[in-house]
Amino acid sequence: MSESSFAAQPYAGIATFGRQPHTRELNGADVAILGVPYDSSTSYRSGCRFGPRAIREQSLLLWGYNNAQKVSPFQTLKVIDYGDVDVVPPDIVATHKAIQDVAARIVNAGVTLLTLGGDHSISLPLLRAQAALHGPVALVHFDAHPDTWDCEYAGQPFSHGTPFRRAIDEGLVDTSAYVQIGIRGPTAGPQDYADALQLGARMITLDDAVERGLPAVLSEVGSVCAGKKVYVTIDIDAVDPAFAPGTGTPEVGGFTSHQMLKLVRGLKGLNIIGADLVEVSPPFDHSGITSILAANLGFELLSLWA
Amino acid sequence: MSESSFAAQPYAGIATFGRQPHTRELNGADVAILGVPYDSSTSYRSGCRFGPRAIREQSLLLWGYNNAQKVSPFQTLKVIDYGDVDVVPPDIVATHKAIQDVAARIVNAGVTLLTLGGDHSISLPLLRAQAALHGPVALVHFDAHPDTWDCEYAGQPFSHGTPFRRAIDEGLVDTSAYVQIGIRGPTAGPQDYADALQLGARMITLDDAVERGLPAVLSEVGSVCAGKKVYVTIDIDAVDPAFAPGTGTPEVGGFTSHQMLKLVRGLKGLNIIGADLVEVSPPFDHSGITSILAANLGFELLSLWA
Amino acid sequence: MSESSFAAQPYAGIATFGRQPHTRELNGADVAILGVPYDSSTSYRSGCRFGPRAIREQSLLLWGYNNAQKVSPFQTLKVIDYGDVDVVPPDIVATHKAIQDVAARIVNAGVTLLTLGGDHSISLPLLRAQAALHGPVALVHFDAHPDTWDCEYAGQPFSHGTPFRRAIDEGLVDTSAYVQIGIRGPTAGPQDYADALQLGARMITLDDAVERGLPAVLSEVGSVCAGKKVYVTIDIDAVDPAFAPGTGTPEVGGFTSHQMLKLVRGLKGLNIIGADLVEVSPPFDHSGITSILAANLGFELLSLWA
Amino acid sequence: MSESSFAAQPYAGIATFGRQPHTRELNGADVAILGVPYDSSTSYRSGCRFGPRAIREQSLLLWGYNNAQKVSPFQTLKVIDYGDVDVVPPDIVATHKAIQDVAARIVNAGVTLLTLGGDHSISLPLLRAQAALHGPVALVHFDAHPDTWDCEYAGQPFSHGTPFRRAIDEGLVDTSAYVQIGIRGPTAGPQDYADALQLGARMITLDDAVERGLPAVLSEVGSVCAGKKVYVTIDIDAVDPAFAPGTGTPEVGGFTSHQMLKLVRGLKGLNIIGADLVEVSPPFDHSGITSILAANLGFELLSLWA
Amino acid sequence: MSESSFAAQPYAGIATFGRQPHTRELNGADVAILGVPYDSSTSYRSGCRFGPRAIREQSLLLWGYNNAQKVSPFQTLKVIDYGDVDVVPPDIVATHKAIQDVAARIVNAGVTLLTLGGDHSISLPLLRAQAALHGPVALVHFDAHPDTWDCEYAGQPFSHGTPFRRAIDEGLVDTSAYVQIGIRGPTAGPQDYADALQLGARMITLDDAVERGLPAVLSEVGSVCAGKKVYVTIDIDAVDPAFAPGTGTPEVGGFTSHQMLKLVRGLKGLNIIGADLVEVSPPFDHSGITSILAANLGFELLSLWA
Amino acid sequence: MSESSFAAQPYAGIATFGRQPHTRELNGADVAILGVPYDSSTSYRSGCRFGPRAIREQSLLLWGYNNAQKVSPFQTLKVIDYGDVDVVPPDIVATHKAIQDVAARIVNAGVTLLTLGGDHSISLPLLRAQAALHGPVALVHFDAHPDTWDCEYAGQPFSHGTPFRRAIDEGLVDTSAYVQIGIRGPTAGPQDYADALQLGARMITLDDAVERGLPAVLSEVGSVCAGKKVYVTIDIDAVDPAFAPGTGTPEVGGFTSHQMLKLVRGLKGLNIIGADLVEVSPPFDHSGITSILAANLGFELLSLWA
Repeated sequence: MSESSFAAQPYAGIATFGRQPHTRELNGADVAILGVPYDSSTSYRSGCRFGPRAIREQSLLLWGYNNAQKVSPFQTLKVIDYGDVDVVPPDIVATHKAIQDVAARIVNAGVTLLTLGGDHSISLPLLRAQAALHGPVALVHFDAHPDTWDCEYAGQPFSHGTPFRRAIDEGLVDTSAYVQIGIRGPTAGPQDYADALQLGARMITLDDAVERGLPAVLSEVGSVCAGKKVYVTIDIDAVDPAFAPGTGTPEVGGFTSHQMLKLVRGLKGLNIIGADLVEVSPPFDHSGITSILAANLGFELLSLWA
Repeated sequence: MSESSFAAQPYAGIATFGRQPHTRELNGADVAILGVPYDSSTSYRSGCRFGPRAIREQSLLLWGYNNAQKVSPFQTLKVIDYGDVDVVPPDIVATHKAIQDVAARIVNAGVTLLTLGGDHSISLPLLRAQAALHGPVALVHFDAHPDTWDCEYAGQPFSHGTPFRRAIDEGLVDTSAYVQIGIRGPTAGPQDYADALQLGARMITLDDAVERGLPAVLSEVGSVCAGKKVYVTIDIDAVDPAFAPGTGTPEVGGFTSHQMLKLVRGLKGLNIIGADLVEVSPPFDHSGITSILAANLGFELLSLWA
Repeated sequence: MSESSFAAQPYAGIATFGRQPHTRELNGADVAILGVPYDSSTSYRSGCRFGPRAIREQSLLLWGYNNAQKVSPFQTLKVIDYGDVDVVPPDIVATHKAIQDVAARIVNAGVTLLTLGGDHSISLPLLRAQAALHGPVALVHFDAHPDTWDCEYAGQPFSHGTPFRRAIDEGLVDTSAYVQIGIRGPTAGPQDYADALQLGARMITLDDAVERGLPAVLSEVGSVCAGKKVYVTIDIDAVDPAFAPGTGTPEVGGFTSHQMLKLVRGLKGLNIIGADLVEVSPPFDHSGITSILAANLGFELLSLWA
Repeated sequence: MSESSFAAQPYAGIATFGRQPHTRELNGADVAILGVPYDSSTSYRSGCRFGPRAIREQSLLLWGYNNAQKVSPFQTLKVIDYGDVDVVPPDIVATHKAIQDVAARIVNAGVTLLTLGGDHSISLPLLRAQAALHGPVALVHFDAHPDTWDCEYAGQPFSHGTPFRRAIDEGLVDTSAYVQIGIRGPTAGPQDYADALQLGARMITLDDAVERGLPAVLSEVGSVCAGKKVYVTIDIDAVDPAFAPGTGTPEVGGFTSHQMLKLVRGLKGLNIIGADLVEVSPPFDHSGITSILAANLGFELLSLWA
Repeated sequence: MSESSFAAQPYAGIATFGRQPHTRELNGADVAILGVPYDSSTSYRSGCRFGPRAIREQSLLLWGYNNAQKVSPFQTLKVIDYGDVDVVPPDIVATHKAIQDVAARIVNAGVTLLTLGGDHSISLPLLRAQAALHGPVALVHFDAHPDTWDCEYAGQPFSHGTPFRRAIDEGLVDTSAYVQIGIRGPTAGPQDYADALQLGARMITLDDAVERGLPAVLSEVGSVCAGKKVYVTIDIDAVDPAFAPGTGTPEVGGFTSHQMLKLVRGLKGLNIIGADLVEVSPPFDHSGITSILAANLGFELLSLWA
Repeated sequence: MSESSFAAQPYAGIATFGRQPHTRELNGADVAILGVPYDSSTSYRSGCRFGPRAIREQSLLLWGYNNAQKVSPFQTLKVIDYGDVDVVPPDIVATHKAIQDVAARIVNAGVTLLTLGGDHSISLPLLRAQAALHGPVALVHFDAHPDTWDCEYAGQPFSHGTPFRRAIDEGLVDTSAYVQIGIRGPTAGPQDYADALQLGARMITLDDAVERGLPAVLSEVGSVCAGKKVYVTIDIDAVDPAFAPGTGTPEVGGFTSHQMLKLVRGLKGLNIIGADLVEVSPPFDHSGITSILAANLGFELLSLWA
């Protein structure tokens, strides 16, 4: 039986990411896929705790060869599926600590980390682990929302709306190279965008991106990040709800999936040291189209590394 | 507790439109939101009687500040949620009378009226109330269908396919300024479009709009409506079913939600005296994406007024 | 227009519980309905943060007169819809404090409190508020699970699996009058049931209840609770997933909705000082049948008080 | 190819009821199946206009032989699928006239009529056609609700809550033989049941039926209806929403599908001159389980006639 | 991290059955779980190719200790998840050969085999593997349908409606001990039941089972199978669609999940040498309730062996 | 009653394609619609056996006049709905033979054949029937995948991934005029595209098509196919899952429905001798948007012929 490779059909077998081995042995691994099934800091729809499992399931559709990037990442790289972090749903601090510990174990072993969320709060402990190793990182951030609020819930510093404010506060981000792409929709007030800009974000709104065209956007990203260690964080809500309905805080008027694929492929050439894919909420998806998109975006990231 | 403002999270509290007060006191109000939960004249899928409730629920995602129009409509304007008209499902004439009575009460009090449908037949009594106050109005009409049939069901003058024929018959529309945008798909015969044109509609089909580009479309709308009192009616099926599946007579090949947002924002500068958003059918929606779009379109309309 | 009463149809108007007034004025109120949209301590499916809104919506089907109990609770009692507690999703301690504060305000004003969850962890702060006023209370607890674990997540005392252990630890429950009804399904080990029993719970498993018959069960409950102040907590998963699919940790082989209605009606005669209905998770419901059941159970509780 | 018989599999071919010929030729027919896709008088969820199509689709699962009644109704009887009435959604009076005309044509030709609704208002014109031929008929009425309101919407005599009041007013029902079975749930007031009783209905509530047992219920029905011409009307909401979620006004605590099958089979021996199956609302169904049940109930009725 | 045991929460980690190791090493194993994702011989709804994956996912809810049987099967037994057979969707003969080969490898190694389907045709190659080792086996068969047709599709001996006819033809079943339980609904003709009886099946229809009561049914099963090697095959459609909507040929009026659990537990004492659970079709399920039931039935079977 | 024409509303009546007569009389017919409810060779999600029924149902929305092509195909052409082929789910060879026999009967009678699938394997027997009459045909093939694998399942020449390899092997395709449009996504290896090209396919990937623009694509198709007999095969997965979620192997980043309509309309002028529409899988669709699109694509094809 062939279920450990893409020779098996997508409906068959145990669902690890891309049918790669489920192990915590880091020796010899190039890339580790890590799930973080945590959704307790979302401000609208919970459910992204099921994101890692759904993305894994749909990743079985990734036949192996990337025709756009002309590479077979699962052959070129040794990829492992590390499984999930043991999160603590009612306690974000304990959860973040657990994430950071696992992430540190992986990245400190020299293994590139691709994390599947979970809500966007998880980028903070991931950046902590990355910055502890690499120093402040350049940040390419796809999202409908800036996620640079100071406080989303009274008195709580941590949530899915604050990770990048906290990361900047903690010195984890090289703010000379922080690009936000896809921002749109209503916010609490005019200060939301202003705050992001003031923190150093180079904000390319959805409207900007559509007007300027993706090549121009990618060229700006390329020049800003040139020579830097880059972390990529993709909130699936950068994409329009028609293409990605399964998310926690859907925002109409976003990217198509074709545009999103082009954007990720366009990061070719950057020195990407890690990435996360967050806010996929399967209970609000239909027929897995959001998870299929997320799996493909993960495949494009792996292909960049291959 | 803060649930009466956007400080509350979208999952919390009683769902009025944009968390505005639910009242029938018109004194001091600038804009009234009115629901019309009527779906008995639809020719395919019923269900838009649940449109007002679903749009209200998703309107809690409208954090308050419109970054595209740079305005906080709920601060600039005093908006109230008037609740719903007491419709009479099996009797369209009684229903239309109830709608017209409530609408007249609101507009005659000098309050701008934004109505959430309900099927498109409701535009007729709304136009009656508007024209009684303002005289014949210019009409900007987003739709996949002309809705200018003479008769949809044997012997019945009123239905969701006839409101604008009836409105023109009754002298409610300034036919020198009637623009239809987004028309497409099959019709009963070649006379459907011909009839609309002959009634005075300036028809910009979906194909026209895509070919000419939205700025050209908006410029034509602007010059046609300049100096006139304009009523805006948005049938959500102007938008493609991928973005707005929750509707009664879906028509493939329509606008994206990004295009639709651009079109509504592009009405800036017109003297819009009232508007309706119709044909949102929640039982055929998924994860509320159609209602979220409708709520955002309502927010854009409010922002035009702010 | 009549939308403030049951003269309006269920599809119309703003959804407060039973169309009762949404207010925080406690003066003159007999019963307050309170929502707690918190789901961050669930161990499987999140989503019950949407429970209060969905139950309110379906409560519009409760035409007013209870033919089984022969009473019109909304006429006999002055019921208000207090709205929702401002929960803090990533922080269970802050959330519990907010719940307790609101609950204390209500019960200390002499208003009977019926709370709509939310996950089962919320019963702890509710019991704190009740016990502060009434002393340790008798507890009638419908559930598939004992919820008396000591610890569900490493190091965390609070979660939806531990509320009654904590409540007993804190002296909030009169353990001579603690009845669990409907318990079934796998547990971590044999000690789960043993622990519950050892804490004082009188456990009537689902199998016991079916074997002995509901009248015998109710008679036992009645004699145990006679003369005591009784708090009732209903986890909707006491009911079989066929009747209540919309819940976080579904357990097959449960009560029918008919049985559940009979059980709640059978509490007639007890001195019930408060109650909660928890674990309704609308994203996993279909066509609202779980919320409709929960709304009816709430109606039966109100009818007991009327 | 064999698609015109049950030799074809259920997924194949054009969906007429039980794969019987779609024709309006009444000559030689024993039973006609008639659809009435009308849902404009429902007081909660619309959608039962899709009932006839969905029941036809699921009727392809009825392999032909009834093992409980030991008869092959499609062989014993010549059954035709007459198609649907041309309803007029916004006008209940015109719709009722159209129903009555078609029904009269069928029953006057000596063909037994089994009608698939549509909302319960359609029973009125069906009873008109039956009573015109047969005089006042005995009525066996399965339902959660009495449907004997005088007026559901201000000033409107006709709706899905009033058909049997109107039928009695018009002398269409032999009130000495009117049995209601399955009634339960809240009503507007105590007068709802009282009114039904006062009109002559022999009301067997759900609780009565469960307590007395189905054989006793059936025995009462049998003695009441003995020697009379009986019309059977089945509102699918007599059945619990777990078994029949796809309906307009779901009422928890109802019959199981097994009980409902037993009840219909138990009508054996009555002189049933016609029947209808109403309130199946496919947009609120899941995986067609409600339509499958309705198709089976229709099959049981046909088997009674065979 | 603890995801390899039930200390992990059900939403976390890689989904093997009951979190048991995924391996093909049979040495030391007591029970192997095997998936057969094959649905090409179903006569109505396909989709049960996704049964094994869905049952595995929901099996993570099985906390470990069976309170009804008072045993911890995953501790008492060494259970492995063998993964899935490499089926060949367009070719039933090749698929059956693949199934038989894998099953033979497992049972010949002395490992008890619990198979998750897949459609019911798969029982044939499973019985071939069992009978090759054990000789003709006693058969306890839960189903709505006899599945003893001679031919379901013109000229094709194999399909999901014929496995037990073929098995008897091939001498795999001890027809003196073949019990069918739960049979109901329409069939092609009176000969369907007659054929089953004539082949030796002891048919306990659903109606028989309800009338006689489950203890009597179980007692008959016990005496028939006493002293024999028993194979158990559970078609999930033995259960009512309200409890198990996710199946290929749903039949109304079936067992409740509580009854089904009781029936399986009641097999205690039989010498069960293998079992399968078939016809779970996740695309037609909602919120996984059918898969949760199937996982629990698997757990009960394991507990019988423990 | 008018249900045999588009005068009936889409919710009414028996669903044949475009309400055309269901008959197997070919005399006088111009076009026959044929359903092939076969899904046993799909490599991921089954369910397209329900494609023909769902497309027929949604085809009732096609009011009759094509405003883009300015033609009324159901008036210009005599179209019949031939019903479905009697497929044999577990046996692809028998199924293909049945398809070829029916198709041959139709095309040999001089009737143009439009087939509704079913999975893509069905194009092979359809091409056999066409080529037997016409000789090798030019092929315009819309798809996300080349479908020119040599073998998808071990040892099986036939499946939904191999039809065009087999067709070329059998000499059914004029490889000088074989255009593939919309290809994208991962494949097993680099040889997948290379193989297709080597077999003669002119591959226009999705990225090519977007870059070059649809007019350029259509112009190439036109010049390649000029003067040839052209067969058109449309796999609905050429379209993006946002617009066509209901399909077996969804591939993100595809055409919009507007683009797809333009592409089919752009085939005007070709000598199209037959066509199929495949891989519509209703269990994975929502609100029928995929089926509505497919029905419209069928309508555009009919309009090309009119």
